[in-house]
Amino acid sequence: MRATLMYGAGDVRVEDVPDPRITEPADAIVRVLRSCICGSDLWPYRSMPPGGHGQRMGHEFLGVVEDTGPEVPGLKRGDLVVAPFVWSDGTCDFCRQGLHTSCRHGGLWGGDLDGGQGEAVRVPQAPGTLVKLPGRVDEALLPSLLSLSDVFCTGHHAAVAARVSPRTSVTVVGDGAVGLCAVLAARRLGAEQIILMGRHKDRTDLGREFGATDVVPERGTDGVERIRELTGGDGTHAVLECVGTREAIETSIGVARDGGMVGRVGAAQYEEVPLGFATIMRNIGVAGGVAPARAYIEELLPGVLDGTLQPGRVFDRTIGLQDTPDGYRAMADRQALKVLIRP
Amino acid sequence: MRATLMYGAGDVRVEDVPDPRITEPADAIVRVLRSCICGSDLWPYRSMPPGGHGQRMGHEFLGVVEDTGPEVPGLKRGDLVVAPFVWSDGTCDFCRQGLHTSCRHGGLWGGDLDGGQGEAVRVPQAPGTLVKLPGRVDEALLPSLLSLSDVFCTGHHAAVAARVSPRTSVTVVGDGAVGLCAVLAARRLGAEQIILMGRHKDRTDLGREFGATDVVPERGTDGVERIRELTGGDGTHAVLECVGTREAIETSIGVARDGGMVGRVGAAQYEEVPLGFATIMRNIGVAGGVAPARAYIEELLPGVLDGTLQPGRVFDRTIGLQDTPDGYRAMADRQALKVLIRP
Repeated sequence: MRATLMYGAGDVRVEDVPDPRITEPADAIVRVLRSCICGSDLWPYRSMPPGGHGQRMGHEFLGVVEDTGPEVPGLKRGDLVVAPFVWSDGTCDFCRQGLHTSCRHGGLWGGDLDGGQGEAVRVPQAPGTLVKLPGRVDEALLPSLLSLSDVFCTGHHAAVAARVSPRTSVTVVGDGAVGLCAVLAARRLGAEQIILMGRHKDRTDLGREFGATDVVPERGTDGVERIRELTGGDGTHAVLECVGTREAIETSIGVARDGGMVGRVGAAQYEEVPLGFATIMRNIGVAGGVAPARAYIEELLPGVLDGTLQPGRVFDRTIGLQDTPDGYRAMADRQALKVLIRP
Repeated sequence: MRATLMYGAGDVRVEDVPDPRITEPADAIVRVLRSCICGSDLWPYRSMPPGGHGQRMGHEFLGVVEDTGPEVPGLKRGDLVVAPFVWSDGTCDFCRQGLHTSCRHGGLWGGDLDGGQGEAVRVPQAPGTLVKLPGRVDEALLPSLLSLSDVFCTGHHAAVAARVSPRTSVTVVGDGAVGLCAVLAARRLGAEQIILMGRHKDRTDLGREFGATDVVPERGTDGVERIRELTGGDGTHAVLECVGTREAIETSIGVARDGGMVGRVGAAQYEEVPLGFATIMRNIGVAGGVAPARAYIEELLPGVLDGTLQPGRVFDRTIGLQDTPDGYRAMADRQALKVLIRP
């Protein structure tokens, strides 16, 4: 089959690889219908040293079950399934707690395993990992269903970690795909004021459609000042940090209202967070991290299926598998917000 | 009246000051029955520059109402009251949210206001600030009732911020008075495993009586390793940081289980907290801060009144007001854990 491999920064290729086959009793083979490129795929795309063997890429996919091992009772050939971006057994103490990203027998796609950016994937721990979707769904829903793999659940995780509720005001830091999904998640959880920090008009326009009540293009101390103006000087109860830079986490703490919580899902490109004495006096907290998407899919699925939630609108370009290298380039050059792949 | 003033590091004096009198309609005058010295009083005791005018000291006290302004409906002369260490109106949005430390019309004792380490105190915002106690209480209960001013509520706040519940394992970092109260609070909230990090045997012995199931004297990476051994390699769900040093917050993050929360109440002597990429992958959070004691007093009071909770046992020395300078010295030299003052 064909699959995407990365050989170094800027060096993405689509090549022939062995067809996946069942190797463990709890495996399933899934033929990929839709996958996509994640903002986190851009880190190795910008920094991976050249010269090694190719790494299989992609951790978000939706597809059709093609084969199952003997210990996959709930799934059969032909089932439509979505896979969260971490595979997990669904039975260990961390999974039962809803922290599937720390599963005792789980792991990440890609690397030496199959990745989502290919024609098919061997799914380990299939009963714990895969979520079966209704048999027949409108093809127009597939992008939003795919977003349950990662990006929508990641935005939702930021909102959960920051304790968004109908009584809270919210700042979302970052107008990337995760930030926009965080707006949608905050709106779903009932937040009345949602301030989106971002400066790309096409993105912030979608953010407004997703529920943002205000948009703040300023960054850094100017951005903090602007948000304080918008909130009577107080800042917001919840802050959803969807970037991962030092500036973003600093801004997040700066715009948090006393007693507020920063839910961070941006992959930290910093080592330290400024949480000194002033934040002790203000009772500012920081929570969140990599999203246990598997824990959220059933909760978010009905709204996606009935069309009230359309997180798939963050995909603004669709390509075939052979064009994956172009997809990476478009996202790295900010010509595309998020790229959908139809193998 | 007589009151304690600090003039610089190591320079504490008991002097004559003007008797307090009602100046605002919501004021009350409280004659102090019991007060105490706080670990936080030791910071200026170690670092305050000399040469300024004296600062009134003390923010924990319990006493009898002597006079009230015209807008103090619920209190009358002779009422026994306890004062939280921040005064607050009890009506603003922050107070209604339970974050009295951020009250829009509140503040701290001492400085240019009366402090608790004196014979009497003018209490601003008395209806919001003071909590009336039953008319006749056994004198033996007064130390534990006094601990509701700050130290017990602060330990409780750490446990609340770290989401301690019957399903959680807990590490308490620090065997000072706050750490020991945090053990007691965690036990009250149902935690089954409570590991106390501390190396002063008299203190950790009291910690065991308060509910600690394990004591770890090692610090730093050795301490982290020891706690991982005690928890099957995982760390604990909740970590109550009751010291405030950089080492303590590093240790707290190091012993947190994936998905765990650090509740910090140690006054931060650091500017930055190590919350880099690894903690994102592990979903580690940090919350807490200065404790809104006023929000907790009613909840904790019944257990203190019926004697099932005895946080007052952290007081291991009692002095008269004239001996306050000796009390500071004893705490600074670690000869006393926490000093009670009977004016």
